[in-house]
Amino acid sequence: MLTKTPHLFDEATAVTAGDSRWQGRTSPDYWAFVGPFGGCTAATILRALMQHPQRAGDPLALTVNYCAPVAEGVFDLDVRLVKANRSSQHWSVEMTQGGGEVATLATAVFAERRPSWSHQPAEFPGAVPFEQLRSFPKLKMTWANQYDFRFAEGEPKFAGGGAAKLPSSPYSKLWIADRVPRKLDALSLMSMSDAFFGRVFHARHELVPFGTVSLTTYFHADAANLDAEDTTRVLATADAKIFHKSYGDQHGELWSPSGRLLATTTQIAYFKA
Amino acid sequence: MLTKTPHLFDEATAVTAGDSRWQGRTSPDYWAFVGPFGGCTAATILRALMQHPQRAGDPLALTVNYCAPVAEGVFDLDVRLVKANRSSQHWSVEMTQGGGEVATLATAVFAERRPSWSHQPAEFPGAVPFEQLRSFPKLKMTWANQYDFRFAEGEPKFAGGGAAKLPSSPYSKLWIADRVPRKLDALSLMSMSDAFFGRVFHARHELVPFGTVSLTTYFHADAANLDAEDTTRVLATADAKIFHKSYGDQHGELWSPSGRLLATTTQIAYFKA
Repeated sequence: MLTKTPHLFDEATAVTAGDSRWQGRTSPDYWAFVGPFGGCTAATILRALMQHPQRAGDPLALTVNYCAPVAEGVFDLDVRLVKANRSSQHWSVEMTQGGGEVATLATAVFAERRPSWSHQPAEFPGAVPFEQLRSFPKLKMTWANQYDFRFAEGEPKFAGGGAAKLPSSPYSKLWIADRVPRKLDALSLMSMSDAFFGRVFHARHELVPFGTVSLTTYFHADAANLDAEDTTRVLATADAKIFHKSYGDQHGELWSPSGRLLATTTQIAYFKA
Repeated sequence: MLTKTPHLFDEATAVTAGDSRWQGRTSPDYWAFVGPFGGCTAATILRALMQHPQRAGDPLALTVNYCAPVAEGVFDLDVRLVKANRSSQHWSVEMTQGGGEVATLATAVFAERRPSWSHQPAEFPGAVPFEQLRSFPKLKMTWANQYDFRFAEGEPKFAGGGAAKLPSSPYSKLWIADRVPRKLDALSLMSMSDAFFGRVFHARHELVPFGTVSLTTYFHADAANLDAEDTTRVLATADAKIFHKSYGDQHGELWSPSGRLLATTTQIAYFKA
């Protein structure tokens, strides 16, 4: 059931050429409130690194700082290998537009994942199977419609109410899949790690002005592990610890259906409420 | 009981002069296995930003990528304000030594913390009072002796055993204070967020080769909040979700004794086991 024509996600995150300087273009298919979906931007940055001729190993950590809204159209990626040793690489990526204004600033670590002692203390959250849950209704933001969200817990109710009602739990557990199935890889994990709805929306059961400021994702599976999983979806959890003075946090987990923890992610986001 | 002469921590994290280029020197008082304690390095970077004439607002997020061991002696900090708007600033900092080799690569976000809806869904973990717990014994690493660690749960037992015994829980709950009391500020929070022992040591009850690769800390209290807390210690928790192919994660919380969540932190670290 995988598509043979290029997947929209692959088109949206495409980059071309370059040694230190890469180019890309925003996609209307992954649009959010005032710019491209941050997960798509993060995946685009990761794709440039994955395709870089000097890249060695698998992505281990990616931090993306969203400095300003990315405008519709073309952008440059200035990609720099800051430091490399036998088993790891440190990268810096700046996304610029127009007169060189920085829209996004990222750092990444790649590593050769050598065999070691393996232990997963985190417990697989489990959930009602994907097929038995209904898809979350389509939204106005195009990016959200590229995903099939199926909530097992904490489906948001944007009925309004805000501070007038008691805050709801910001916890969610849901299946996330590309709506057009696409085999899970590091790029889709990166994007999905930003595909949770703002925790403040859940807590206040209303949409408020919101924007991710900094996002960090750690990869706990390498390409071989992901190949072996051979899946098109993750079971994901997200929660928040605090909302204070216009900023709130989020932390999340992305699991394979078989119970392997593939990635952990955290972010801090601006909100107005 | 606060010291009047400069605190060792303030000496260890001191930086001088510079607009875009700052200088510092490693401290033997905060030394780890093969270089300075990563928390001290992170706090030194944060101090350069805090003292920068263009800095506005409070630290919101700091990510530090440890690219190579920092050698004993002097280092340069190349500090760059990448993007600023009315309420936030994005910074990049590179720590270099010798011929310009990058040892540490960091990004930071500062923000004016405007009043907003405030809500803390995370639950204060609570613990036996600091005074009723014994200090963790002194260690060979000098940095660890600058702190007074008092474990309420998950005190490590480095008796050895490794994979031969069942893994222990990597969870810890402990008080962390400067051994010479020092009023808590953003700098000490930054340092303390890397002051947990490696989770792999807890899980395997033995010391193994270990190094933090990337550390991210979010601040949930601004200077006014910290001033109001007026404390010299935090109640801290740390846990890990997975150890796999030579890398393991850690996530932690730093709480004021009064029950305010001051900072959250996560890191990914190399281990050999």
